[in-house]
Amino acid sequence: MPEFLELLPPKEATKRWMAHLPDPRPGKESLKTGQSLGRVTAEAIASPEALPAFPRSTVDGYAVIARDTFGANDSLPAYLTQVGEVPMGCQPDFNLHSAQTALIFTGGMLPEGADAVVMLEHTQLAAPGEIEVLRAAGVGENILKAGEDVTQQQIIVRAGVRLRPPEIGGLLALGITRIKVTRRPKIGIISSGDEIVVPQIHPSTGQVRDINSYTLGALVEQAGGKPVLYGIVPDEREALMKMLRTALDNCAAVIVTAGSSASTRDLTAEVIQNLGAPGVLVHGVNLHPGKPTILAVCDGKAVIGLPGNSVSALVVASLFVTPLVEHLLGLVYPRPRPALVARLSINLASQAGREDYVPVILSNETQGYLAEPIFFKSNLIFSLVRADGLLKIPSAATGLSAGEQVMVTLL
Amino acid sequence: MPEFLELLPPKEATKRWMAHLPDPRPGKESLKTGQSLGRVTAEAIASPEALPAFPRSTVDGYAVIARDTFGANDSLPAYLTQVGEVPMGCQPDFNLHSAQTALIFTGGMLPEGADAVVMLEHTQLAAPGEIEVLRAAGVGENILKAGEDVTQQQIIVRAGVRLRPPEIGGLLALGITRIKVTRRPKIGIISSGDEIVVPQIHPSTGQVRDINSYTLGALVEQAGGKPVLYGIVPDEREALMKMLRTALDNCAAVIVTAGSSASTRDLTAEVIQNLGAPGVLVHGVNLHPGKPTILAVCDGKAVIGLPGNSVSALVVASLFVTPLVEHLLGLVYPRPRPALVARLSINLASQAGREDYVPVILSNETQGYLAEPIFFKSNLIFSLVRADGLLKIPSAATGLSAGEQVMVTLL
Repeated sequence: MPEFLELLPPKEATKRWMAHLPDPRPGKESLKTGQSLGRVTAEAIASPEALPAFPRSTVDGYAVIARDTFGANDSLPAYLTQVGEVPMGCQPDFNLHSAQTALIFTGGMLPEGADAVVMLEHTQLAAPGEIEVLRAAGVGENILKAGEDVTQQQIIVRAGVRLRPPEIGGLLALGITRIKVTRRPKIGIISSGDEIVVPQIHPSTGQVRDINSYTLGALVEQAGGKPVLYGIVPDEREALMKMLRTALDNCAAVIVTAGSSASTRDLTAEVIQNLGAPGVLVHGVNLHPGKPTILAVCDGKAVIGLPGNSVSALVVASLFVTPLVEHLLGLVYPRPRPALVARLSINLASQAGREDYVPVILSNETQGYLAEPIFFKSNLIFSLVRADGLLKIPSAATGLSAGEQVMVTLL
Repeated sequence: MPEFLELLPPKEATKRWMAHLPDPRPGKESLKTGQSLGRVTAEAIASPEALPAFPRSTVDGYAVIARDTFGANDSLPAYLTQVGEVPMGCQPDFNLHSAQTALIFTGGMLPEGADAVVMLEHTQLAAPGEIEVLRAAGVGENILKAGEDVTQQQIIVRAGVRLRPPEIGGLLALGITRIKVTRRPKIGIISSGDEIVVPQIHPSTGQVRDINSYTLGALVEQAGGKPVLYGIVPDEREALMKMLRTALDNCAAVIVTAGSSASTRDLTAEVIQNLGAPGVLVHGVNLHPGKPTILAVCDGKAVIGLPGNSVSALVVASLFVTPLVEHLLGLVYPRPRPALVARLSINLASQAGREDYVPVILSNETQGYLAEPIFFKSNLIFSLVRADGLLKIPSAATGLSAGEQVMVTLL
């Protein structure tokens, strides 16, 4: 099964492919909230209570009834009687009545009757028990109202959100100590090629050790999936078909890196095509490196065929494998992907109509980052080890000029 | 111990503080290379062999002696005799002599005598066993030389590098299946405050649940450290001192979130000051939120005092805790921190001379990201849950204008 005549741009290729994927149904598991960093919520979480549960001061100062301070200033202070001090962590055992005030600290609970706090530095002790207020306070000034952060029953984290430190803190602030997260999807990984051996043995002359199982496994792990390594299969139809079927039966999706020659790549596509309907949806992407990429859906599960070259395989995987893993993980609201702005060190040529990815080294200069392209051959994995990130040359460009501002995604 | 009169900018505060930290001596542990994603190398790793170990073809084509193809073109091809086909994964059992060629596939080993490969599409079968070469090949064309990626004994990964997918693949390509990485440093975390209770119980009126232990714990985990939670201490000198000593004895560094009021913050600074020499080096940073930050070194270990407000604590921690954890982890070569370029949605005022961090929501528009600031109070943790990232207003600016291009670091 040779490459399609029409090479799709990466974005359209992804669209055509993912349109055939069924909605993900990730499993659920219950975890301690404090141990769920990086996991994805399996269901929407509503707040069992309001936060804060009571009105609190945001400053050190004096709790007041705002209208008592109306018009107060340095030359005409308002005089209030201090009736107490709010103890931290307790409900005050007094209420404020007209012309009364109480000392309160940041985070303290506002006494009944008070509706504002005047900062300590805008007050003065006039006489024992008598406080001069030197500035007028508006209703609500320097306080957090009950429920100002979250109201009861409000959805605080939607289903399909990856948990970061703020979510973990917010959930625990509400006493939610366990939550349901999605299970990490198992992603099968197969390396094919007659010349490939496992890293544990010393290759004979002509053989090379497997790289792709491990770079792709690490990438799957980074994205939140569980890599399952099926090892190496020779470039033979039957062996490849058998291994793919085993992997597909046990995993949510499968990645296979094809042998490197055109004929073995075509063999891989043919085997995937026969694995289940609708089969191969994309064979060949207008992309460098990574043109011979295969995107398929077989009986409801995604299958990706990547080029055998280690650099190409990893570049392509960051474009197609990461979104797939996130989809299977039930991540509905991905955060924007960060990148870095840099200045390009030299002119870079590119073929119009094709999206190019070039590994770059970033160096920090006074005016910002300088991106220096690495001239790579697609089987030299250490070009990527040296690189900090990948520079994208959009398909519309015929190249980029030295000094131009470019976006670099980190590896 | 009140705030210093001189408030340092965050960068100088970090410098003054870290200058007093001894060189880190992280422990070492041996791990399977395939399981070391995100860990930091404890020692430099040299390559035991050259990669590739033998010259390989980068294309499907014919192995040739370059000078045999000199001047060849469509109208005047070079005629070569095919003496064999290179099997994948084996050393060819023949050599090339003048005017001879052999079929070879991508990744195949170059036969002895060959010094270039002509791509299949630039050849033609003239007669059985006779190949027309339609284009001249230069010496080295379409081949990887032995050692072109890595030479024997070359340092391939330095000590103090965080391992990404390319490093893992590269190490395994060389048969390095186990490596020494640094141990994750234990970072003690203490929450202080008379009003704070553990998340597991229902707070009485006036009490609030602990947030900071968990947001900071998650941040430490993200940076590669091992959070050790010491729980909650009341705002009392003796209790705080005792807990800090215990934590400092057992951990590589300690973070304490101070009570929220000015007096409890000063108490925290005083206790830290008495914990060991040189004590508090920075008390107060020209930063919003997070001004009352304390940076200390006590008997060779870092101690950080953070504001009690949950938003401030997390913003400050991303500035000071993350670099500290990376330092203790032995990370010598951190990668650049990614950020996002966005357009600001509204005018933002700021105080000149002070660095401001504002939580923003990012939305993807046709021209790129739009950053919409969230107006937050520093104790509303859900302002950070809603936010995608933090926008920095540099200290020199008195504000930013709507439409201006800004950098946003993700939370």
